[in-house]
Amino acid sequence: MKAKLIEFDIAARFRKKKKTFAIAESCTGGLVSHRITDVPGSSRYYRGGVVAYSNAIKISILGVPKELIKKHGAVSRQVAKAMAFGMRSLTGADIVAAVTGIAGPSGGTPEKPVGLAYISVLSNKSCTIKKVLFEGSRMEIKTVFAEAVLKEIKKKIGA
Amino acid sequence: MKAKLIEFDIAARFRKKKKTFAIAESCTGGLVSHRITDVPGSSRYYRGGVVAYSNAIKISILGVPKELIKKHGAVSRQVAKAMAFGMRSLTGADIVAAVTGIAGPSGGTPEKPVGLAYISVLSNKSCTIKKVLFEGSRMEIKTVFAEAVLKEIKKKIGA
Repeated sequence: MKAKLIEFDIAARFRKKKKTFAIAESCTGGLVSHRITDVPGSSRYYRGGVVAYSNAIKISILGVPKELIKKHGAVSRQVAKAMAFGMRSLTGADIVAAVTGIAGPSGGTPEKPVGLAYISVLSNKSCTIKKVLFEGSRMEIKTVFAEAVLKEIKKKIGA
Repeated sequence: MKAKLIEFDIAARFRKKKKTFAIAESCTGGLVSHRITDVPGSSRYYRGGVVAYSNAIKISILGVPKELIKKHGAVSRQVAKAMAFGMRSLTGADIVAAVTGIAGPSGGTPEKPVGLAYISVLSNKSCTIKKVLFEGSRMEIKTVFAEAVLKEIKKKIGA
């Protein structure tokens, strides 16, 4: 049996449950949205995404408070959560994911190394935040982050 | 000699000219943004993107007039242009691209078939709109659309 890519599994669950989805991405740069939209019929549940590749866009489009970024850094639990809440305000989607991290090769620090990301997934019942840390090239890190985001979405939508 | 992927070529030009970039995608679903952000250092010129996968997001986030979508359809020269102007208003980027089209397999009509897209690229000097039409599977169409968008961006940024 051929294993299904996780985005096809997610799509089936969203359509079965008649729930909608939106995402705010930083370090994955649009890859999660790209994978979600590889599935035919994804426009039935996927509202859209924001690729917030600069702090200015996190603030202006997603409404992340400037002070939160200053206090905790753009790559933090707090900012991941604020991105998810901001994306929900913009779209009204039932389930919203957000990811902020460092794909590298530059931008890492001893405290927040390349390969670190925070993933937040929000439903009307709960908000979960997951920390992930991987080693690899920029493209490998993007790929692994995106897969991790899709896994968190799958957990949130449920069986 | 190994040919460079176009996103690396584009990145070098943006960085040389110290120009910034943003994109509003519909049918490519985040793939252009994903390719742009595969390049290390892309955060120096790439502000971010909006994946406007529903008309609601084209209207609410990008500010595309509802009447324009009603009159010309979401897949039209007029909406591509309005998406680009909306994305510029949101980000202030020097060069802004927008793409709206039909990746299929459903959603096509005799007048606007699967594989049709309009690509708009905007600088502070000019706004160009290109119509493209391809045949293929959903994933092939997304790939070819994204490549076409990257080519239009490269033309606009110049040598």
